[in-house]
Amino acid sequence: MSDSALLTIDRERFQEDFDTLSSFGATAEGGVNRPAFSAAHRAARRWFAGRAEEAGLVVHVDGASNHSASLTFPGAEKTLVIGSHLDSVPTGGRFDGAYGVLAALEVLRRVKEAGLQLSVNLMAIDFTDEESHYVEFLGSRAFTGVLPLAELQTPHAAPMREAIAGLGLDLEAMAGSGRDAREFAGYLELHIEQGPRLINSSTDIGIVESIVGLRFSRLVFTGQADHAGTTPMEIRRNAGLGAAAFTLALHELLDTDFPNCVGNVGNMAFTPGVTNVVSRQVTVDFEFRFPDEQQGDALEAVIEDRIASIAEQFDLEFEITPTGRARSAQTDPALQRAVGDAAERLGLSAMTMHSGAGHDAQIMSAFTPACVIFIPSVGGISHNPAEFSTREDCENGANVLLQTVLSQSGG
Amino acid sequence: MSDSALLTIDRERFQEDFDTLSSFGATAEGGVNRPAFSAAHRAARRWFAGRAEEAGLVVHVDGASNHSASLTFPGAEKTLVIGSHLDSVPTGGRFDGAYGVLAALEVLRRVKEAGLQLSVNLMAIDFTDEESHYVEFLGSRAFTGVLPLAELQTPHAAPMREAIAGLGLDLEAMAGSGRDAREFAGYLELHIEQGPRLINSSTDIGIVESIVGLRFSRLVFTGQADHAGTTPMEIRRNAGLGAAAFTLALHELLDTDFPNCVGNVGNMAFTPGVTNVVSRQVTVDFEFRFPDEQQGDALEAVIEDRIASIAEQFDLEFEITPTGRARSAQTDPALQRAVGDAAERLGLSAMTMHSGAGHDAQIMSAFTPACVIFIPSVGGISHNPAEFSTREDCENGANVLLQTVLSQSGG
Repeated sequence: MSDSALLTIDRERFQEDFDTLSSFGATAEGGVNRPAFSAAHRAARRWFAGRAEEAGLVVHVDGASNHSASLTFPGAEKTLVIGSHLDSVPTGGRFDGAYGVLAALEVLRRVKEAGLQLSVNLMAIDFTDEESHYVEFLGSRAFTGVLPLAELQTPHAAPMREAIAGLGLDLEAMAGSGRDAREFAGYLELHIEQGPRLINSSTDIGIVESIVGLRFSRLVFTGQADHAGTTPMEIRRNAGLGAAAFTLALHELLDTDFPNCVGNVGNMAFTPGVTNVVSRQVTVDFEFRFPDEQQGDALEAVIEDRIASIAEQFDLEFEITPTGRARSAQTDPALQRAVGDAAERLGLSAMTMHSGAGHDAQIMSAFTPACVIFIPSVGGISHNPAEFSTREDCENGANVLLQTVLSQSGG
Repeated sequence: MSDSALLTIDRERFQEDFDTLSSFGATAEGGVNRPAFSAAHRAARRWFAGRAEEAGLVVHVDGASNHSASLTFPGAEKTLVIGSHLDSVPTGGRFDGAYGVLAALEVLRRVKEAGLQLSVNLMAIDFTDEESHYVEFLGSRAFTGVLPLAELQTPHAAPMREAIAGLGLDLEAMAGSGRDAREFAGYLELHIEQGPRLINSSTDIGIVESIVGLRFSRLVFTGQADHAGTTPMEIRRNAGLGAAAFTLALHELLDTDFPNCVGNVGNMAFTPGVTNVVSRQVTVDFEFRFPDEQQGDALEAVIEDRIASIAEQFDLEFEITPTGRARSAQTDPALQRAVGDAAERLGLSAMTMHSGAGHDAQIMSAFTPACVIFIPSVGGISHNPAEFSTREDCENGANVLLQTVLSQSGG
């Protein structure tokens, strides 16, 4: 292993590819806007597939539109999957997801170029809709066989069905894309931290031990539409007041009783949504995240109590619909050690840590041994055009991924 | 005057016309959706013009798309204008505005059928965009020459410019539609109360002495987009928290310090508006209304102070842009007395009152002597499909309008 232990990525090619990839859905602010199934997202995926083919890899697109590139070896029985996602939030940065997919592609290219014969096959994967623009962890849940067809047929998934019309995809194929876990040796995901811990402690590499659980919900408060000039204030049934009070209450209760959890109200829609009418209905999209399921359950119960009391206070009706959830997850200890060893071989500092962001790895961890590798995010900023990681950190992470892969495949 | 003193409207025709008019933009809930310049609104206006022409009235559409029907008399020098508006809020009821336009048409028809020769000409008018869907009191401000071209060219008015594209309207003509006040003898507007005072006191007719002043504004809070999972709660700059806190604060300060005023947050728009991103920006459309300008100024100052302290609390920037305003107004005492006398002649009870809703009459009152006549609203409900006034009350109001018109025109 002495020669391959020092195998590293092609820095120039990696940087050039990263710059090209960043151009798909590029925004004036320097970020990318590539929601799943958007034209920019599909273009980025086509480019990824083309680059993989140019490198002599075998490209496959499954029923859930997961894009993968494979490198197989004679006698190898199982496949080690590495990857992330090419979709972004609407105001996304260039690194979130894209960095990990590109690093996976580069790892396969380097292994192929080096002529290594590994004991496991390699697959670089780009999962569909990791950002849950339409359906929570659509691609990895489909891949691992835990995406029910019924979920794709709910009203919540209607915008996705509209988005995929004419793209040659169908719901049955999506739900039927599950693979056999016995085919796989594990899953590794390289990602930016999206938080400030590595950068603040001047650490090169994060080894993710646990991944946050998350629950997304849609809350609808319903009151009564009234003339905003003539209706006495005290008899209004203003759905907007419920939405506002809930937003503040969510933050207050996280602050006082759930310091290890976070939450967010990300959108509201007012009906009828005009200045001179008291709002009849307000739809509130919110989420909360927690380190373990016990805290998740406790927080959810408190949130539901609070919503009920707010509805009573403002004389409103309410309905809460879960729109997505992912269980908190532990990563594989052997893979954690392998990542740490790889960092050490490369002379990089590393620390174990918790991931406050959701990742496809938490879905994959219930299916095959999985681990996530983090690199520092400048300022801890993410889901923002200003999201940035240094070129050196990006190369370090890709080299740790490559060395970890080699350690798991007899390279 | 003994014969015309008892002249009343054609009840059957009035009811049939009201039912027909209610069909334009009719909603499943029993209301109407006729925002200014919508297809339903334009269809209702065409129908109105057609009915006026059938009655032998002279129809005119001015540069601001105000639709009017006129009845002129030899030797008459001035014109008494009566009317209201055919546009509605998106979840509007059938009566708000439409009732007053139809009553004005019926008054002109009855005068013409009765062969009366009056000393002033009559004009039944349907003002454009009274509900300020695009521009505050567009039609009456254009008619009275106080709608600056510059206002139509602001970003705030951009949606209107889009809505009128292809309709043969242009901004210069809109702003240039002002009439000479010396041509006019006065303005009378018949309207539903949109509040509970008449119905609760079993009074037939409201004589409006004063009309509320109102100020509409758009408030934009700007923070920073961040990953909603990984960014520590305490360093987020969440624009949604500012919007929520402002909504509650507006209601609280109205409740404690401004009991004679009302306010409303009618819409919010979140950017980027997705669940897993901390909102970078939230746009809040709000309004407040006040009985006199002194209270309006005082309330506005307190609101601006509160917004500044909320922005500081949540580390946000903010910008407040006025999007519409109308001064509070007093109606004409002589017209008030004329309405009261007309009600008395018809054996109806009447009371003087304040209008908490804005009306074109408050724009017209700065231009020509004006008054508003109210009829009871069942439950005080308005801007809602359940908005309702009884057939008897509608007929009473139209007869009071007719008798008041005759009293002002030697009929």
